Amino acid sequence: MNNQNSDRRKFLQRITAATLAALGGSFYTSRPLTAGMSQGESQSYAVVPEDGIILFQGDSITDAGRDREHTAPNDQRGLGPGYVFLAAAELLGEVPEKKLQCYNRGISGNKVFQLAARWEEDCIRLQPDILSILIGVNDFWHTLTHGYDGTPETYNKDFRALSDRTRDLLPEVRFIIGEPFVLPEGSAVNETWFPAFRRYQDVARKIASDYDATFIAYQSVFDEASRQAPQTYWSSDGVHPSTAGCYLMAKAWLRTLQSMG
Amino acid sequence: MNNQNSDRRKFLQRITAATLAALGGSFYTSRPLTAGMSQGESQSYAVVPEDGIILFQGDSITDAGRDREHTAPNDQRGLGPGYVFLAAAELLGEVPEKKLQCYNRGISGNKVFQLAARWEEDCIRLQPDILSILIGVNDFWHTLTHGYDGTPETYNKDFRALSDRTRDLLPEVRFIIGEPFVLPEGSAVNETWFPAFRRYQDVARKIASDYDATFIAYQSVFDEASRQAPQTYWSSDGVHPSTAGCYLMAKAWLRTLQSMG
Repeated sequence: MNNQNSDRRKFLQRITAATLAALGGSFYTSRPLTAGMSQGESQSYAVVPEDGIILFQGDSITDAGRDREHTAPNDQRGLGPGYVFLAAAELLGEVPEKKLQCYNRGISGNKVFQLAARWEEDCIRLQPDILSILIGVNDFWHTLTHGYDGTPETYNKDFRALSDRTRDLLPEVRFIIGEPFVLPEGSAVNETWFPAFRRYQDVARKIASDYDATFIAYQSVFDEASRQAPQTYWSSDGVHPSTAGCYLMAKAWLRTLQSMG
Repeated sequence: MNNQNSDRRKFLQRITAATLAALGGSFYTSRPLTAGMSQGESQSYAVVPEDGIILFQGDSITDAGRDREHTAPNDQRGLGPGYVFLAAAELLGEVPEKKLQCYNRGISGNKVFQLAARWEEDCIRLQPDILSILIGVNDFWHTLTHGYDGTPETYNKDFRALSDRTRDLLPEVRFIIGEPFVLPEGSAVNETWFPAFRRYQDVARKIASDYDATFIAYQSVFDEASRQAPQTYWSSDGVHPSTAGCYLMAKAWLRTLQSMG
């Protein structure tokens, strides 16, 4: 981990703000942190610099069926019909004066080591100012379905190596780590996921803490939403969010970004 | 026009509210009408009934490259990465208890007569509670590029016939008509569009008035946004909205829906 060139930021303060923003009773009832699609007040997203580059990285949840032939920033087909498009659209629409560039480089099925294999091309080269990573569900899931022999320790080691490399090569990047999540009632999920999957979530949270990343507690976001509608409303298979689930994620992501600066 | 079976609604009152919501200084600075993605208060969208069916109809702007193999309601790929997905995601995320079904049945290149040819399959059969139509840019544009010989009178006649049929077969449907729009600095637009295209916009507005539809003044939405960033930020070719342009449309659409209930 290299923090020599970056401002040491108050991680605990930030994670607390982001988590409070995304969680619990406050999720639906608190005073607005930011404007939204059908709300009236412009917002600054102060953490995002002018001409800022925002990169979303991850697996199928991030990928969302994007058209990989469309690689230009802000391209609708390249962003894909998922949480990335929802979040990017709000940013681009609310702060047009910043002339942001949003990229989706999630790839379906990826585990951490597969991110690492394409990191130069799909992260470092893009020189992001904001880097958002959501990775981990396949690091566990594929041990059940694809004969993958990784463990939480593998996930931890791989994710820390990727984070070291990122901090070395992009010392100024603001780093967001999303919590891998699962909805137990989904069609792809059964009891073998628990408690095993929780260890991966713990790893992601600890890495966020150690690498000065802002953590998004997606599991809590979905747990809270599941009090309002069945889990399968938010994700049919328990892994991939529905349109409504994508909305929850984008909302939590935007609130997190707002809390960062 | 058949209003025998529908409540006669106060059209002028509604169009005024919707237009005020979408327009001018109030667009960015007014008190919120509704919650939004990163805002905190749940909203009811009172006009939308429980188990409500919402249908988006139109041309490529609505289509947005959706995957036409995915015909189920609320399917991300079937909604496509455009304003429909943004609007549907917010509705589905904000009022999960309503168990809404959102369909996108826009098809690239369509003019009114082509909507009419598939209206039974792609509208009536779906029995929408809310029907949103945005059609007209090709009714003009294709006279320049595809040898189409329609006129504003053709557009008017075809659109009225479609509206009659809709009111007859779906007497209770709440009807939204979006204004066709163009951004003159776009790469696909030149001086031959003006003032000719304005006549199509006038037709759409008059039909909304005559058929008790709520009108969305998209031209004004884009004109206002173009004070904040260049027109090409909102639409590169002047016809198809960018990701940021889709956000403007979804925001105006949601505010309109909120104003209806």
